[in-house]
Amino acid sequence: MTDTVSSPVSTARSDDATDPVAILTRLIRCPSVTPAEGGALAALQEILAPLGFAVERPVFSDIDTPDVENLFARAGAAGPHLVFAGHTDVVPPGDQSDWREGPFSAAIVDGELYGRGAVDMKGGIAAFVAAYARQVERAGHPAGQVSLLITGDEEGPAVNGTVKLLDWASARGERFDACVVGEPTNPAAMGDMIKIGRRGSLSAELRITGVQGHVAYPHLADNPLRTLTAIAEALMDEPLDAGSAEFPASNLEITSIDTGNGSVNVIPARARLFFNVRFSDRWTPDSLKVELTRRIEAAAASGRFREGRDAANVEIVWRARPSESFLTRDDALTQALAGAVKAVTGRQPQLSTSGGTSDARFIKDFCPVVEFGLVGKTMHMSNERVPVEDLETLTRIYETFIARWFAAHA
Amino acid sequence: MTDTVSSPVSTARSDDATDPVAILTRLIRCPSVTPAEGGALAALQEILAPLGFAVERPVFSDIDTPDVENLFARAGAAGPHLVFAGHTDVVPPGDQSDWREGPFSAAIVDGELYGRGAVDMKGGIAAFVAAYARQVERAGHPAGQVSLLITGDEEGPAVNGTVKLLDWASARGERFDACVVGEPTNPAAMGDMIKIGRRGSLSAELRITGVQGHVAYPHLADNPLRTLTAIAEALMDEPLDAGSAEFPASNLEITSIDTGNGSVNVIPARARLFFNVRFSDRWTPDSLKVELTRRIEAAAASGRFREGRDAANVEIVWRARPSESFLTRDDALTQALAGAVKAVTGRQPQLSTSGGTSDARFIKDFCPVVEFGLVGKTMHMSNERVPVEDLETLTRIYETFIARWFAAHA
Repeated sequence: MTDTVSSPVSTARSDDATDPVAILTRLIRCPSVTPAEGGALAALQEILAPLGFAVERPVFSDIDTPDVENLFARAGAAGPHLVFAGHTDVVPPGDQSDWREGPFSAAIVDGELYGRGAVDMKGGIAAFVAAYARQVERAGHPAGQVSLLITGDEEGPAVNGTVKLLDWASARGERFDACVVGEPTNPAAMGDMIKIGRRGSLSAELRITGVQGHVAYPHLADNPLRTLTAIAEALMDEPLDAGSAEFPASNLEITSIDTGNGSVNVIPARARLFFNVRFSDRWTPDSLKVELTRRIEAAAASGRFREGRDAANVEIVWRARPSESFLTRDDALTQALAGAVKAVTGRQPQLSTSGGTSDARFIKDFCPVVEFGLVGKTMHMSNERVPVEDLETLTRIYETFIARWFAAHA
Repeated sequence: MTDTVSSPVSTARSDDATDPVAILTRLIRCPSVTPAEGGALAALQEILAPLGFAVERPVFSDIDTPDVENLFARAGAAGPHLVFAGHTDVVPPGDQSDWREGPFSAAIVDGELYGRGAVDMKGGIAAFVAAYARQVERAGHPAGQVSLLITGDEEGPAVNGTVKLLDWASARGERFDACVVGEPTNPAAMGDMIKIGRRGSLSAELRITGVQGHVAYPHLADNPLRTLTAIAEALMDEPLDAGSAEFPASNLEITSIDTGNGSVNVIPARARLFFNVRFSDRWTPDSLKVELTRRIEAAAASGRFREGRDAANVEIVWRARPSESFLTRDDALTQALAGAVKAVTGRQPQLSTSGGTSDARFIKDFCPVVEFGLVGKTMHMSNERVPVEDLETLTRIYETFIARWFAAHA
C-alpha cells in the first residue's frame, strides 16, 4: 500500500453523474462494512436526487441483529416499472497490509480501481446510476418508472435488508415489472454470463448418538462414527440428479464432521455431521428433505459395519429458511439484457443458474429478475479491484438495456 | 454415603496377614489416587516385612511426569522364582455423592466391601499376601523365591512404574520364572477367565488437507471430507482377520473425526481422523502399519467422489509406543493356575486374550505371565466393591496355585 496516493479522480468530473468512476470513487471512500452505513447511502441519495429520484432511507430492526439502513429511490410516476437492486454494504477488508492500495482509497493503478466493493457491488451501482444519467441526458426520462432498491444488509445476516425493503415497498403500493440485480456475474470477462435463476440451498445437521465404551470392548459399545460413515457415503455416493437444460447438477457437500473425543482408547458416544445441498429445479426443499431422509435412514438401518447391533440414533435438524431454486422465464427481460451485452461487447452471454444465492431469491417473488454486473474474480479478496474499462462497458450495457427494455414495454 | 459407619473390620483380626479383608481394608483407607502413594505402599511394607520379605521402595522420575513410588519385595534366596505383579494406585473416585459408601471407607454392606481399588486391584494384592501368609502358616516358605512387584503408576502415565521397576530389578540380578498379574479378569463370576496374552494396540491420526472454498463452487475446492469418508470406509469395511485359536478377531475403531468448520457455506480445508486397532497375533505393529497405509493410500487415490480432482493430501501420524500382541505358552504356569481355579471353584476357566492392555505387556519380556484376579464389573465405576466371599475365593485360589506351581518346579 502506498502512503501517498495521487488523487485517482483528478481527471474525472467528480460532480458528473454520468461518470461511473466518479460515483464509484465516492462510494468506495465510504467504509460501509456491514452493518455500517458508512456514508454510502447518504452519498447515493445526494447523487440520485438531482437526477429526479424521490429517495427514502428506511431503517429496519429486529431482535438479535443490528439495525440496518436501506434506500429506495424512484423516478417516474406511472408506466412500466424497472427496478435495479443492489447493496452498498461490503465485507470486511481483512488485514490492510495484504492490500496493495488502501481498501477504502479508490486508488487507480494501471487502469484498475482498487477498493472493497469495487466489483461487489458498488461498481454495479455506479454503472447503473451513470447509465440512467446518460439516458436522461441523451433522450430524457424513460416512458415509465425506474427505481433503485439498495440494501445495507446483503453481506451480513440479511435480516434487515432486501426482504423487508421489498415488503415495505409493496405495502406502499409499489409494483415492479422487472428487476436487474447488479451483482458480479461474469467469471472471467465482461459479457460472459447473465444469471437467470439460481439453485436452491438446503442445510442440515445430523446428530448421531451411539453408546460410549472402551475400544478393547467394542461389543459393549456402539460407535456412532460407523453409522456416520455409512450415512456420509449414502449422501454423496449417488448423484442427486444430472442437472437440466437450465440448471447444473445438484451437489451435496459435507461441510463438517465433529466428535471432540480426545481419548484414543474411548469409543465416543456421539458425533455430528453438517451438510449443504445446492439443488436444481428437479427438487423443492420438501422433496429433497424426503429423499435425503430416505438415504440417511436407510444407511443408519442397513446394519453395515454393525454386526447385528442396535442402530445408532440419528436426529436430523434441518436449518431454517432453505432457498428454493428459481428460473426467470421472462424472455423480453432476458433478451433486452442479453441483446445489450451483445451490442456493447460483441459477445453472446451464457444464461446460467450456477453459483451461490443472492437477493434475487427474494426479489423473484415480486417480479421477474435477472442478474448482470462486473467480473467477480477479486470479490471478497484482498486487492478487490475493477478495470476502469469494465466500469465503462457495464455502464454502456445498462444504458442500452434501459432503452431496449422500455422500448419493448412501450 | 452413611455418615457413621460401624467398623467394617470389627470381626476381623486386623493384625492377621492371613485375612484378605483386613489387608484390603487397610489398603483402601489409603487414598492412593495416581500418582499419590497415599500410605498404601508403606502399609504393604509393614504387612510384608513380618512375613519374611525384604522390601524396597524405589522412586522413579522422568521429565513431564510426576515422581512415582514403587515396591519390590522378595522372600527366599534361591530356586524357582514366582512373582506377583500389581498396583496400589487407583483411579479417582469421581463425585463422592455418587457413592453409596465412602470411596475410601472400606465399609462392608450386605457382604460387599466398598471402596476405590476394591477389585482394581488392591483386592488382588490383599488376596495374594493372605495366600502367601497361609502357605507359610500351613507348610512354611515355598522351596524357592516369591516376589511382589507393585507399582504406583499403572492407572497414570505408566512411565515411572512397571517398566522401570522391571529394569531396576533386572539390573540387580533378579530373574523371574513366572508371573501372575492380579488384575480383575473375570467378566461375571470367580473362575470365568484367565488371561494368557493380550491383543496388540496401535493408534494413528490422519491429517487430510484439501482446498477450502464456497459450497456453491465445489469445482474450485477439494473437500477433504470426501477423501476422509472413503478412507473411513476402507479402514472399517474389510475385517483385518477372523481371529485365531487363541485370539479374537482384530478390530479397528475410529475414535474421533474433527473438522471444526462453523460455516455451512464453506467447504473446509482440512479434517482429522483418529483410530485405534486392537490386533491379534496375525499382525505385528509394523505389518499392520503396512496394511493400513495400503488401505489409506488406495482410498485416497481411488478418485471416489472426486470426478477427476487432485487427491487430497493425507498425512499418517502413528502414535508412539504401539503394543505388540503376545501369548504365553508356558503350560506348567497356565495349568497350575487353571487347576487351582478348578479345584477351588469347580469351574474350568476360559483361557483368553480378550480385553484391554495391562502391565503384562511389559512383564512378558522378562518371564511367562498370566493374569487372574477378581470380577471386574465395578472397576473404575462409582460404588466399586468386592463380595467378601470373592476375596476369600481368590485367596484360596492363589494359595493353591502357589503350592502347585512350586510342586511343579521342585
